[in-house]
Amino acid sequence: MRVGLLTGGGDCPGLNAAIRAVVKHGEGTYGHSIIGFRNGWRGVVDGDVMPLGRPHIRNVLPSGGTLLGTARYHPDDHDGGIDAVMATLEAERIEALICIGGDGTLHAASKVAEAGVRIVAIPKTIDNDVSGTDLSIGFHTAVNIATEAIDRIHTTAESHNRVMVVEVMGRHAGWIAVNAGIAGGAELILTPEDPFDIDQVVKFLKHRHRAHANFSIVVVAEGAEPRKGGSMDYTTQLGRFGEIVAGAVGERLAHEIADRTGFDTRVTILGHVQRGGSPTPTDRILGSRFGVAAIDAVVEGRTGVMTALRGEHVELVPLSEVAGKPKRVPADLIRAAQVLA
Amino acid sequence: MRVGLLTGGGDCPGLNAAIRAVVKHGEGTYGHSIIGFRNGWRGVVDGDVMPLGRPHIRNVLPSGGTLLGTARYHPDDHDGGIDAVMATLEAERIEALICIGGDGTLHAASKVAEAGVRIVAIPKTIDNDVSGTDLSIGFHTAVNIATEAIDRIHTTAESHNRVMVVEVMGRHAGWIAVNAGIAGGAELILTPEDPFDIDQVVKFLKHRHRAHANFSIVVVAEGAEPRKGGSMDYTTQLGRFGEIVAGAVGERLAHEIADRTGFDTRVTILGHVQRGGSPTPTDRILGSRFGVAAIDAVVEGRTGVMTALRGEHVELVPLSEVAGKPKRVPADLIRAAQVLA
Amino acid sequence: MRVGLLTGGGDCPGLNAAIRAVVKHGEGTYGHSIIGFRNGWRGVVDGDVMPLGRPHIRNVLPSGGTLLGTARYHPDDHDGGIDAVMATLEAERIEALICIGGDGTLHAASKVAEAGVRIVAIPKTIDNDVSGTDLSIGFHTAVNIATEAIDRIHTTAESHNRVMVVEVMGRHAGWIAVNAGIAGGAELILTPEDPFDIDQVVKFLKHRHRAHANFSIVVVAEGAEPRKGGSMDYTTQLGRFGEIVAGAVGERLAHEIADRTGFDTRVTILGHVQRGGSPTPTDRILGSRFGVAAIDAVVEGRTGVMTALRGEHVELVPLSEVAGKPKRVPADLIRAAQVLA
Amino acid sequence: MRVGLLTGGGDCPGLNAAIRAVVKHGEGTYGHSIIGFRNGWRGVVDGDVMPLGRPHIRNVLPSGGTLLGTARYHPDDHDGGIDAVMATLEAERIEALICIGGDGTLHAASKVAEAGVRIVAIPKTIDNDVSGTDLSIGFHTAVNIATEAIDRIHTTAESHNRVMVVEVMGRHAGWIAVNAGIAGGAELILTPEDPFDIDQVVKFLKHRHRAHANFSIVVVAEGAEPRKGGSMDYTTQLGRFGEIVAGAVGERLAHEIADRTGFDTRVTILGHVQRGGSPTPTDRILGSRFGVAAIDAVVEGRTGVMTALRGEHVELVPLSEVAGKPKRVPADLIRAAQVLA
Repeated sequence: MRVGLLTGGGDCPGLNAAIRAVVKHGEGTYGHSIIGFRNGWRGVVDGDVMPLGRPHIRNVLPSGGTLLGTARYHPDDHDGGIDAVMATLEAERIEALICIGGDGTLHAASKVAEAGVRIVAIPKTIDNDVSGTDLSIGFHTAVNIATEAIDRIHTTAESHNRVMVVEVMGRHAGWIAVNAGIAGGAELILTPEDPFDIDQVVKFLKHRHRAHANFSIVVVAEGAEPRKGGSMDYTTQLGRFGEIVAGAVGERLAHEIADRTGFDTRVTILGHVQRGGSPTPTDRILGSRFGVAAIDAVVEGRTGVMTALRGEHVELVPLSEVAGKPKRVPADLIRAAQVLA
Repeated sequence: MRVGLLTGGGDCPGLNAAIRAVVKHGEGTYGHSIIGFRNGWRGVVDGDVMPLGRPHIRNVLPSGGTLLGTARYHPDDHDGGIDAVMATLEAERIEALICIGGDGTLHAASKVAEAGVRIVAIPKTIDNDVSGTDLSIGFHTAVNIATEAIDRIHTTAESHNRVMVVEVMGRHAGWIAVNAGIAGGAELILTPEDPFDIDQVVKFLKHRHRAHANFSIVVVAEGAEPRKGGSMDYTTQLGRFGEIVAGAVGERLAHEIADRTGFDTRVTILGHVQRGGSPTPTDRILGSRFGVAAIDAVVEGRTGVMTALRGEHVELVPLSEVAGKPKRVPADLIRAAQVLA
Repeated sequence: MRVGLLTGGGDCPGLNAAIRAVVKHGEGTYGHSIIGFRNGWRGVVDGDVMPLGRPHIRNVLPSGGTLLGTARYHPDDHDGGIDAVMATLEAERIEALICIGGDGTLHAASKVAEAGVRIVAIPKTIDNDVSGTDLSIGFHTAVNIATEAIDRIHTTAESHNRVMVVEVMGRHAGWIAVNAGIAGGAELILTPEDPFDIDQVVKFLKHRHRAHANFSIVVVAEGAEPRKGGSMDYTTQLGRFGEIVAGAVGERLAHEIADRTGFDTRVTILGHVQRGGSPTPTDRILGSRFGVAAIDAVVEGRTGVMTALRGEHVELVPLSEVAGKPKRVPADLIRAAQVLA
Repeated sequence: MRVGLLTGGGDCPGLNAAIRAVVKHGEGTYGHSIIGFRNGWRGVVDGDVMPLGRPHIRNVLPSGGTLLGTARYHPDDHDGGIDAVMATLEAERIEALICIGGDGTLHAASKVAEAGVRIVAIPKTIDNDVSGTDLSIGFHTAVNIATEAIDRIHTTAESHNRVMVVEVMGRHAGWIAVNAGIAGGAELILTPEDPFDIDQVVKFLKHRHRAHANFSIVVVAEGAEPRKGGSMDYTTQLGRFGEIVAGAVGERLAHEIADRTGFDTRVTILGHVQRGGSPTPTDRILGSRFGVAAIDAVVEGRTGVMTALRGEHVELVPLSEVAGKPKRVPADLIRAAQVLA
């Protein structure tokens, strides 16, 4: 059996663990030929293939990124994109395609599945906002990196009596902000889910510095926005592709806090370091289990499904229940963040 | 309201996060007085108390161990132990007691609950074998430490063409072995759940070194045992308290492998480093959420319950469903470990 | 004997190790009273004292920042500043003053020494540009953090075929850039010592991407500048205090590279994370040895001297030989960086 | 020019950085052919060669171990060994040989140099006991790993009121013990340089536990020995090759302490983890600079020399001044360790 494999969207740690598991289990257990496509859907459209075997996956478990390369390209956004995909899959005699990616990749995957290809998806996104699974590949490592950065910034905040604003990733959901904020002991956590009121932020910080301490750490997700009509109303800054611009809200917020409180305030934009480097054991295990489950799903003849972590088990969920429904931070976790601030 | 708090059994990272959350939420949200007992149940029996407030929990989130101290002492194993506990709780006018601990502490907690005390338990064990919860405090950090050690040992194994045996913690369950083994890319993982056959181990290693590679990593849980009646039959070595002796199986196994294969073989006993140091973000978040949930349970008048992680949520489970039923590694995780070896 | 102690300038990891050593050795070996001043020279001017003993230094060895607090305030820049310092030292009956700080603090220290106070200085600066010593406190940890960030960014650069610009600290010297650049395997390292030619940078990157690889990492110190009269001539952006603005050169450079090469180019500004968090063992040992040596110097009646690492030994050097002479990266290290690019 | 390259003795982190620098600088700057020998001197004797070029050194900078493999084999210990070395070097037309290794490898290198081969050596040993250089490759990473372990063990010691004995590497010198002991805040540090008196150890611990604290950390180098004629006199346990057996002194010492003080005492043998895993930035830079300097030495026609770090500079020292003279921990560092205990 010839099984195709691609990684799409932004890279993150844990992708190589999933690739390794697909190759080890597919080739080792079932004798499949695993055909990698370079640079995500772009490689499928271009017919850019790379047969994968034992030598390619040697020592990749602890490495970040993806040995297949990736690109932010979605065939369903381009005329003839899906047709080009189908042509390559036929030319390469691909009997099933395993797609590792985030929301965009999963959406494309569901379109290709509808066109008749046997598809199994594996969720990855450092933002953790894919529905149907407790965890997606890459999120756990990102939380670790962000927490480590907050730990570091903590000592400077305290030594210099400063307000430190730390902007973390998260365009549509505050998963990294809430988790790293709790783990790092942040005083305030601002997320895309809850537009913030700058007056409340300022009031909180003034009260804290009067009553308890002379430093504070404010964690803000890059997609967090001030409340419409509030005293810091502004239009979210968008980049070339209509994406939220990293650093915009962090810098704006730090300026407002400095101006309104008079406290010495600094900002750190974590940026790309959050998606790189060696995966945590959790992401290695998650990628490995998802890769094994994807091959099992292929062998069982499943299609249009995604591997998902549910509690202690890996299960399969229909892609149709997942795509286009960003997962929000649950209420009990939000509440824990609030009472611990 | 006066709420008692203790940490019992072996120490581990994440306990201070739970203590901090109990104090922050109990005192901050509800105005409770939090009364700590030093050194676990021993401190309850001896009336060794330490009132806890904001100053005690400053900067403790990233620190390992327990600021309350702990001891491996269980009042239900001693005549008059439970009576002494009741006397202290009455003298200190404790209205509810939050007990953070593993199987032994939880068992004692259920006895004290039966005697009429309002009890809420929080599970901690680096072995992760407490039932009813996906995770217990301390396990996640232990897996990280063990994986990091396997990563390090991997480079030596490969440079010197050796078989490296790594003994990790896990007396009754192989959670650390299986998780760190998958994350570290071990070739063989031996657990207490499955008695191993030394002939199969040797056969596997010989085959691997002939066909694929000239080094191997074998991860063995300290409670793993050779199959009864097999060619390595031996009696598990027990210490003063009837506990399995760390290092015993690792050293024995390394000698057998060296003798039977002729391969250069070394053993590393990870030991105490697995339970120390700064907790991972996951353990900090878990401890924090459990602490918040425990106070909420106290406020809601619950008793005889334990906080538990179930998927993305923290829930309460009855202590009676949990105590004395060690949680085993699930079959799908075991299988993933096997197909990836 | 009453010995004063202060930490001045920007905070960094390893200060607490030095404070601990001064207290342990001063109090423990010689029975000195150690009198801390809060927030650097500001605390001396304001008479803000904090007697230090064993309880204050418990568990501080692995912690970042400074338990004394610090401030960027120099008494020699203010009318009457030195007089106020002398008045406090007399009022507190300080017989010797140990000053831990960078160039500004050392300059103030030499002025106070000239006014007749017994002064021993300890060098700290993450920029490592204090003369007379191989290492200053804080630099080693900063290099570790920057290297770890480059490692992380490397995997993203490679997975996405990008040019990644990483801006590190270093206003007047490229120590962090050169060391972290070599350790992280950067392709280009730009420092304040050598104004860069944007045309050469672009030519190098185009050649590399044509001949060898499709990604590159460019490490740039925040104080690096384009060559005057070159095609990227611009005025360095200065902040409120005449300091170089973090992020300015990194963002400018990334835009120029993107525009002139057409390569997908991103920038990461490491910022404050470089000066926070737990010190490396090297910084803990350095701080500890400097603290011991400073007390020994006080006991021997030395003044106007600074502790310095010279090869394997800690020695004393006259402050007059050190102040105002920033240490540059040596030629053999620069050359190593170049041939390894 | 054809330049041979080998890594001998025990593996350690930083070897790949040196190999990479030799290849990058030798091939890239001078057009040399770099001929690697597998598994140290064993590969020279057997003619087991591996030509090295850019593809072999891709991504090896952050990896531990040695891509050439290594073995504890010295040709000068075997009849005809040196002749076999000369025969291979002639057959492979090797014009210069770069040997990376510890004392044994350096000794063999000096013999081969005497036989007329152009030899440049690079020192590596995690024990740091090679003379003539401030640092050898691998030592810095080992100190980091040992310090991290002591940090972890610290929290358990404190939570359980225990004496924790930590055995680190160091057969003939206490470099790791002293450095990691200072960095980890150990209470007692025992080294091969100073035979210890068990009565003094016990007295010190009893005094400390009575006066100051109820826990202690004792760091002991594997080659530390009790004072002859003292009350713990015993013969150092030697392995098959006459080497000191890891764990022997640590376990013996822990038993003595437990028996004589009654304190709850545990031992951790760090073992192989100290020599594995990703090198610290310091070891990557050291390996890189040594590799560059070795090629420069070859080009300059030097022979019988070793690269050495002296303060901030890399220099060359004659092998004859170095071999067979183990470097001891300097007195000022020993004293710092003592006054900080």
